[in-house]
Amino acid sequence: MQLPPRDDILAHLYTSVISDTLDATGHRRQAMRSFVRPLDEDAVLYGRARTGLYMDTYDVASGANPYEVEIALVDDLEEDDIAVLGCRGPTERIAPWGELLSTAARARGAVGCVTDGLVRDVRAIRAMKFPVFAGGIGPLDSQGRAEMKAMDVRIECAGVPVSPGDLVFGDVDGVVVIPVGVAPEVLHRALDKVTAENRTRDALNAGKTLKEVYDTYGVL
Amino acid sequence: MQLPPRDDILAHLYTSVISDTLDATGHRRQAMRSFVRPLDEDAVLYGRARTGLYMDTYDVASGANPYEVEIALVDDLEEDDIAVLGCRGPTERIAPWGELLSTAARARGAVGCVTDGLVRDVRAIRAMKFPVFAGGIGPLDSQGRAEMKAMDVRIECAGVPVSPGDLVFGDVDGVVVIPVGVAPEVLHRALDKVTAENRTRDALNAGKTLKEVYDTYGVL
Amino acid sequence: MQLPPRDDILAHLYTSVISDTLDATGHRRQAMRSFVRPLDEDAVLYGRARTGLYMDTYDVASGANPYEVEIALVDDLEEDDIAVLGCRGPTERIAPWGELLSTAARARGAVGCVTDGLVRDVRAIRAMKFPVFAGGIGPLDSQGRAEMKAMDVRIECAGVPVSPGDLVFGDVDGVVVIPVGVAPEVLHRALDKVTAENRTRDALNAGKTLKEVYDTYGVL
Amino acid sequence: MQLPPRDDILAHLYTSVISDTLDATGHRRQAMRSFVRPLDEDAVLYGRARTGLYMDTYDVASGANPYEVEIALVDDLEEDDIAVLGCRGPTERIAPWGELLSTAARARGAVGCVTDGLVRDVRAIRAMKFPVFAGGIGPLDSQGRAEMKAMDVRIECAGVPVSPGDLVFGDVDGVVVIPVGVAPEVLHRALDKVTAENRTRDALNAGKTLKEVYDTYGVL
Amino acid sequence: MQLPPRDDILAHLYTSVISDTLDATGHRRQAMRSFVRPLDEDAVLYGRARTGLYMDTYDVASGANPYEVEIALVDDLEEDDIAVLGCRGPTERIAPWGELLSTAARARGAVGCVTDGLVRDVRAIRAMKFPVFAGGIGPLDSQGRAEMKAMDVRIECAGVPVSPGDLVFGDVDGVVVIPVGVAPEVLHRALDKVTAENRTRDALNAGKTLKEVYDTYGVL
Amino acid sequence: MQLPPRDDILAHLYTSVISDTLDATGHRRQAMRSFVRPLDEDAVLYGRARTGLYMDTYDVASGANPYEVEIALVDDLEEDDIAVLGCRGPTERIAPWGELLSTAARARGAVGCVTDGLVRDVRAIRAMKFPVFAGGIGPLDSQGRAEMKAMDVRIECAGVPVSPGDLVFGDVDGVVVIPVGVAPEVLHRALDKVTAENRTRDALNAGKTLKEVYDTYGVL
Repeated sequence: MQLPPRDDILAHLYTSVISDTLDATGHRRQAMRSFVRPLDEDAVLYGRARTGLYMDTYDVASGANPYEVEIALVDDLEEDDIAVLGCRGPTERIAPWGELLSTAARARGAVGCVTDGLVRDVRAIRAMKFPVFAGGIGPLDSQGRAEMKAMDVRIECAGVPVSPGDLVFGDVDGVVVIPVGVAPEVLHRALDKVTAENRTRDALNAGKTLKEVYDTYGVL
Repeated sequence: MQLPPRDDILAHLYTSVISDTLDATGHRRQAMRSFVRPLDEDAVLYGRARTGLYMDTYDVASGANPYEVEIALVDDLEEDDIAVLGCRGPTERIAPWGELLSTAARARGAVGCVTDGLVRDVRAIRAMKFPVFAGGIGPLDSQGRAEMKAMDVRIECAGVPVSPGDLVFGDVDGVVVIPVGVAPEVLHRALDKVTAENRTRDALNAGKTLKEVYDTYGVL
Repeated sequence: MQLPPRDDILAHLYTSVISDTLDATGHRRQAMRSFVRPLDEDAVLYGRARTGLYMDTYDVASGANPYEVEIALVDDLEEDDIAVLGCRGPTERIAPWGELLSTAARARGAVGCVTDGLVRDVRAIRAMKFPVFAGGIGPLDSQGRAEMKAMDVRIECAGVPVSPGDLVFGDVDGVVVIPVGVAPEVLHRALDKVTAENRTRDALNAGKTLKEVYDTYGVL
Repeated sequence: MQLPPRDDILAHLYTSVISDTLDATGHRRQAMRSFVRPLDEDAVLYGRARTGLYMDTYDVASGANPYEVEIALVDDLEEDDIAVLGCRGPTERIAPWGELLSTAARARGAVGCVTDGLVRDVRAIRAMKFPVFAGGIGPLDSQGRAEMKAMDVRIECAGVPVSPGDLVFGDVDGVVVIPVGVAPEVLHRALDKVTAENRTRDALNAGKTLKEVYDTYGVL
Repeated sequence: MQLPPRDDILAHLYTSVISDTLDATGHRRQAMRSFVRPLDEDAVLYGRARTGLYMDTYDVASGANPYEVEIALVDDLEEDDIAVLGCRGPTERIAPWGELLSTAARARGAVGCVTDGLVRDVRAIRAMKFPVFAGGIGPLDSQGRAEMKAMDVRIECAGVPVSPGDLVFGDVDGVVVIPVGVAPEVLHRALDKVTAENRTRDALNAGKTLKEVYDTYGVL
Repeated sequence: MQLPPRDDILAHLYTSVISDTLDATGHRRQAMRSFVRPLDEDAVLYGRARTGLYMDTYDVASGANPYEVEIALVDDLEEDDIAVLGCRGPTERIAPWGELLSTAARARGAVGCVTDGLVRDVRAIRAMKFPVFAGGIGPLDSQGRAEMKAMDVRIECAGVPVSPGDLVFGDVDGVVVIPVGVAPEVLHRALDKVTAENRTRDALNAGKTLKEVYDTYGVL
């Protein structure tokens, strides 16, 4: 099965309908924990996960470049990629993402970043309209506090396992991860479910009781 | 004693002055914990509590309708009612409230929802201007995760006991619960306190020290 | 060394660049924990810390004025002072700051408040445009719950030690505390670092890879 | 495949070797969270799960018997059963288990209790030598605070899903849940792994390096 | 009504039966949170509360004696008093109690200490057989970290309000606080309830079902 | 200055007196958080830190040996070394230490292990009398959950920075870290303080008030 066209997904889907569809297909642990929030509540995020895994460190004196893997990941991002950074959040130790990485990522065609760490340079990132979903906001750079030790490996971000290539969808309701193997089925079914939800809403607005519409359409 | 007119309450009162008045009458545990926030910080909420009590569940296979009590509560809401849903929050397991329940509740005349669980379909609810105060935002449906097991019973929501019929007031500062038995006294006294606070503010703006105005008006 | 002019600091600096400079000078614990957030995300805060230290209390019956030290601190605030209130937050027990204290503080020339407790009267404070950074929002007054027991002493606020006279800078990314002894050096170096960051951003926007710009400018 | 004899399991197995074997067969979420501890660190627990699911309540006035389902579960326990009580712990609200339930359960042949709630009457239970693993110790009865609402359903206890009939093993290292479908394979393999661990220990005691023994036996 | 003799209380009562009796008389928030544990699980504690209230501090340089109020409280303890120290625990910042205070308190006739802070010198205190119930164990002295600011005031300790003169009972199940005004009634009723519990236990041991004994004796 | 003889330290010192001496020399963050507890409360631990730093991982499929650095560290331990393992605890994900590592470490002359992760095989380790201080007890192996990524680097364990070569002392009161540069001074002063504490205890036992002895000896 093919994925639905990107434009259809962005135009019609939202996090909660995808979450319900993942539930219905037996994937019930795909919603990131609610401390991960968008910098811009109007943002909609959809793309392929490119993962980075962080380790906390406690030594600033090291001669090595602490940003080496991070730089490699960002410079390797491609069209419609999303950097997904696992910091074992919630954490307050570091903000692995900021304005300069947003600028670099966007220049490579990437469409956003998701992290369970913090984000900084929020004013600038909002001005850029680059979608970032983060575990909080704070100014602390990672240097001497954490290092990305691996890229393009299976990670966990805000409670959800993420493998490179999984699809990520985010909006004001949060972030869901769609395992790549079931993505076509899930996204097609989610588009279908939107129709049932629209009918339910119309019926409720027309004065039907919740019981009546639930008996009819079976969605809530 | 009668309650003050609803319009006076909505026009003049705010959460902190009601909280101070509850304190002054010996009701000192009436403010919900601060993790409960309004979806829309301009919203003002005032109405009668209609309570629902949730139990976490871990089985999706059940043949029964998991929404049965929830549907019954929403379909039974009346003018100026507020659905108050106790999920033993803070929780990230479920979003018991969303767009469709907001639509159904509003159609019955209800004026809002308060929950210590999550809320979903935030974009649509904001567009409806339906006041929702929730313990967070997230996409997870309750099915297979939790069920409302009782309605119109005494519950606890975000740390505050709530009985059916208690009055609930919420704005950007949070949510307070006014036990129905003391509501007329509390709300009349709160309206009086607003006057003293206005005088204090005027005196401060006129350059008086805090000591002078506190010695004069006794409020802070 | 002299401090850079206040206008230059407000025009050019931001929390993350100051945080990086504090890091570079070996002061690595100067960023408040991320639960402290501005009421207004556009606010920029810069001034001298005037500290207050709170103790939780559990008795409302005391004849003494529970606000005595608090009133003394606020009435003693001077031009460009910032009230920094340590409540051992995160806490939900009290909102030590609100509209009336904001009004009184502004009348003395103070430029803001930072607390790891809650703030109340948020609507009014936002209307005043008085910068407040707090650990949350809630309506509970301190009376019978907490008392400021000391002013102008060394405190800890949101994880950072603060001494009277330390400089405080806050914006949408959070709050950093600059120990007074190193403030001139830190703020001059931060102004220099802004230049390097601007060049990095320009190079990234011009299509350079992150690796190239990091090798050239050494900042991230 | 048959289960190994109960006596062999009790004589040779321990929690960590079962946990490793569950890991090796792809069941990696079977160890209860570490806040669940045995009342008696010498106790070894092995039996069939009989589950109870609790809901928090906030009303003491109810005329109904709040212990109804709880009594039904305990009176229905059979030889080698273990009561596994899910309270959405860690919690401090209730101690669902105590001396009287221990006495009743033992009289039916049950071999223990596991709960993520608290336990009370600890002195008496220890004197009985009845194995109880609980999320803490505290005196609060459940009446007016919580009720068992369902028995013999799928629950979650201390982070692990438990279905009626699953096998439960506990000792000083904690509690693991062995899904009934894989129990024969897991327990036979665990008995085999004990042999490899014994050889490893002997080699280490004989002065071999860890590298040598790991290269030889492949267990750690 | 008189209090039952101290010897009867120590010989027959235990925390859970007192907790149930407090519940039955409408005092449902009297059990300290379960993180407060006895140093010696065989200890039984019963006496009058003498309270101390701590404030966190962050300055070691102060010339004043930071132990002044603490010393005054301990030197003023009398026969059967219990020092109850409120540190807003759970905390890890300080151990307000240790061997020397235990020695001084015992010399005055005091029978124990309860704190929601930490305790230190555990080996020595255990050797003395002085009953201490604490929120944890740790070596940090209070100097420069906290000070007792008031004695013999209403405090909160591990979630329970404690007034000077309240009765405190503790054993392996935890600590309950009996408000002095209801203490005679509560303690006499608790002694009565012990009898019903003994009958229940006997009936269960004789093979009756839980349903039968609950229907007969009404206790669980 | 030389370190005092190891036997003197083990015979006379205890954690709280070392902690006070570290405080007095301006090292006020040297006590590990109180969740780290000894497996055996009678154990006394004193030796040189050999550090290991863990990163959480989420992939079991890797071909590489996940224990490689861990094995290298343990095989390299020398007389009086203590393995200090930083897992960013409190954590429940892994037990990095168990019986086999204890056996291997003891065979190399190491005198203990401290970790802010969990420990497993507790029964066997207690039988060996090998001192282990851990953040909890649990059966989960690290494989597929975490890997030691660096040894002999600066780490943080239970809130305290630890560098290779620092001295570590632990007993029932907890664990303190003595930076190697100040160790001779701190340990000699601690031995002196023991004398003052002994006099204080004698005076209290002789009936002096706390005020008298504090005025005389100045220790508490």
